Amino acid sequence: MKVTVLTGGVGGAKLVLGLTTILPAHAITAIVNTGDDFVHLGLPISPDIDTLLYTLAGKSDLERGWGRGGETWSFMAAVRELGGPAWFNLGDGDLALHVLRLAAFARGESLSQVTAAFARAWSLATTILPMSDDPVATLVDTDDGRLSFQDYFVARQCAPSLRGVSFGGADTARPGPGVLDAIAGADRILIAPSNPWLSVNPILAVPGLRDAIVLAPAPVVAVSPLIAGQAVKGPTAKLMAELGLPLTNASIATHYSGLIDGLLIDAGDDAGEVAVPVARTATLMRSLEDRARVAQAALDLAGALATGAT
Amino acid sequence: MKVTVLTGGVGGAKLVLGLTTILPAHAITAIVNTGDDFVHLGLPISPDIDTLLYTLAGKSDLERGWGRGGETWSFMAAVRELGGPAWFNLGDGDLALHVLRLAAFARGESLSQVTAAFARAWSLATTILPMSDDPVATLVDTDDGRLSFQDYFVARQCAPSLRGVSFGGADTARPGPGVLDAIAGADRILIAPSNPWLSVNPILAVPGLRDAIVLAPAPVVAVSPLIAGQAVKGPTAKLMAELGLPLTNASIATHYSGLIDGLLIDAGDDAGEVAVPVARTATLMRSLEDRARVAQAALDLAGALATGAT
Repeated sequence: MKVTVLTGGVGGAKLVLGLTTILPAHAITAIVNTGDDFVHLGLPISPDIDTLLYTLAGKSDLERGWGRGGETWSFMAAVRELGGPAWFNLGDGDLALHVLRLAAFARGESLSQVTAAFARAWSLATTILPMSDDPVATLVDTDDGRLSFQDYFVARQCAPSLRGVSFGGADTARPGPGVLDAIAGADRILIAPSNPWLSVNPILAVPGLRDAIVLAPAPVVAVSPLIAGQAVKGPTAKLMAELGLPLTNASIATHYSGLIDGLLIDAGDDAGEVAVPVARTATLMRSLEDRARVAQAALDLAGALATGAT
Repeated sequence: MKVTVLTGGVGGAKLVLGLTTILPAHAITAIVNTGDDFVHLGLPISPDIDTLLYTLAGKSDLERGWGRGGETWSFMAAVRELGGPAWFNLGDGDLALHVLRLAAFARGESLSQVTAAFARAWSLATTILPMSDDPVATLVDTDDGRLSFQDYFVARQCAPSLRGVSFGGADTARPGPGVLDAIAGADRILIAPSNPWLSVNPILAVPGLRDAIVLAPAPVVAVSPLIAGQAVKGPTAKLMAELGLPLTNASIATHYSGLIDGLLIDAGDDAGEVAVPVARTATLMRSLEDRARVAQAALDLAGALATGAT
C-alpha cells in the first residue's frame, strides 16, 4: 500500500514518522512545502525538508523542537562576533545540509536531487519530495506590509497581524519530479496537521498539484491542526482569528473543501459543521506512540473511505 | 614610521604579529597572498587572509598551527555523515568567515571590503590588504600533472614532486585597493619568511606590484624562511630541492634579486654568496618574544639600509 503525505515541517514530520512505524518506509512519500525556503547569507535553506530529514533519521532535537540534536553553536557565536546577522540560528552540524546543498546547486543539481542524496546518505527509504524544484516564496501580507515567510515567522515571531498569504513564483513553478506520480499512484493521500494556510497552501499553489489530488483515485484525509480550538504549535490559531475564521474543525474542512474526503480530529473535539466524514483520536503527538496512533487513525479513516465504509 | 609587509599565511602572520608589539598597529600594512584562495563547497576560502585575521585578533589555534582556537567540528562530522568531501577541514567557527564572505560577495562587496569589515569587527588597526580583488590561482605543476594549490598542499600534503608554479589569472589581475599606495608610501618594506615560490611569488605576479616595490623609496628586507638549510614549516625545502636549488640563503637572495636590499637570516646560518647586506637573529618564531625579536631585527636592518649604515 502506497501512502503519500502533503506536509510542512515539525507537525507534519511527526505524522510521517508515525507512518514509518506502521508501514514500510519505501511505501511512504512525503511531498514537502518549500515555500519557506530562502537564501540566508548566501546559503540555500530548506527548513521543512530538513525537518523531515532530521526527524526521519532520528537526528532532530526533540526538546528544542527544530534543528539537529546534540547541536553546537560555534558558527553563530563567530557570526555575532563579526557583526553578522544573528536573527536566524544556524547550528554547526545543520550548516552541513545548507553548505552541501549550495555545492550541489553549484554543480547544477536540483533540490530534488540533493534531497534524495541526503536521504540516501542517512539510509532513509521514505521518499522525500520537494513540492517543486522551482523557487516558490510564501509571502505574508501583514499590518507591517508584505513580509517574507522567515521575516514573519522567525524574525518577527508571527507578531504582525496577518491579512493574507501569497506565493511568489507559484504561477510558473512546476511540480517536482515524482510529485504528480506519487499523488496519482497513491492508495491513500494524507494532509499532515501542518498550517493549512502557511504550509499546505504553498504545495496546493503549485500548478497541477491540486488538480492531481482531486483526480487521484486515493481517498484524501486531512489531520486537523486544531485541538480544542487551538493549534499545538505555531501561528495557526492566531492566523485563523486574523483571517476572521472561527477556530473550528469546520473552518479546516471548508479550507480543504473539494480536496479532502475525510477529516481526522481530536478525540475531544466537536465535528460541528464539518461536511466530510470525520474520525477521532487524540491528535496531540508527543511520543512516538502518539505519532503512530494518529497515523493509524488517519490510515483507518482513509481505508474506511476507500471501501465505502463511512 | 610606516611598514608594509608582503606575506603568506602562518609564518608571515607571526612576523606581522611581532611588528604589532613594536609599532602602533595602524602603522602596519600587510599585503597578503590570495593565490591559495579557492571556492570549496561553494564557499569562498581565503586561507592566508584568515590566518592574518586570526593571528592578529588573538584567535588562532597555536597548537594546531592553523584555524581558530577553541574550535568545534560538528560541521565536518555532519559533512562526513552525509558523504561530503572531508579532505579540507572547516571548523564551525571558521565557517563564519567563509559564509559571511559569501554573503558579502553576493551583495557585490570585494574581498578587500569584506576583509576590512572583518578587521574592523575584531578591532584590528593593522591594515590587511588582499594582493588583489581579482582571482589569482596558484597552480603547481607536478609529476602528477597540474594541481590547484589546495589539492597539492592539503589533499596531497605536498607529496607530488614539483616542477614549476604558475599563477592563473595573474596576467589580468589588478593590485587590490591601497596596495600600490602602501608600497609607495612605506618607510620600510618587509618580505615575510613565507614560501618565496608559493606564497610571495603570487603577490609579485600581480602586474605592477613588483615594479612598485622596485621603485619604492623604502628599503626592502626579506626574512629568510630557511634555518640551517631547512624550512620551519611547509614545503619550502622540498620544493627548492625539486627545483634544483641549493638549500641556502643565497638561493633565497637570488630569488629576490633586484627586489630586496637586505636579507635577515638565522643567527646560526652562513651568508654564503648572498649578494645583499645581511643581518642575523634567531629567526625561529615560537614565542611572542621571538616574533618581536625577528620583527625588530628586520626593522633594524631596513633602518641601517635607509641610513646607509650597511
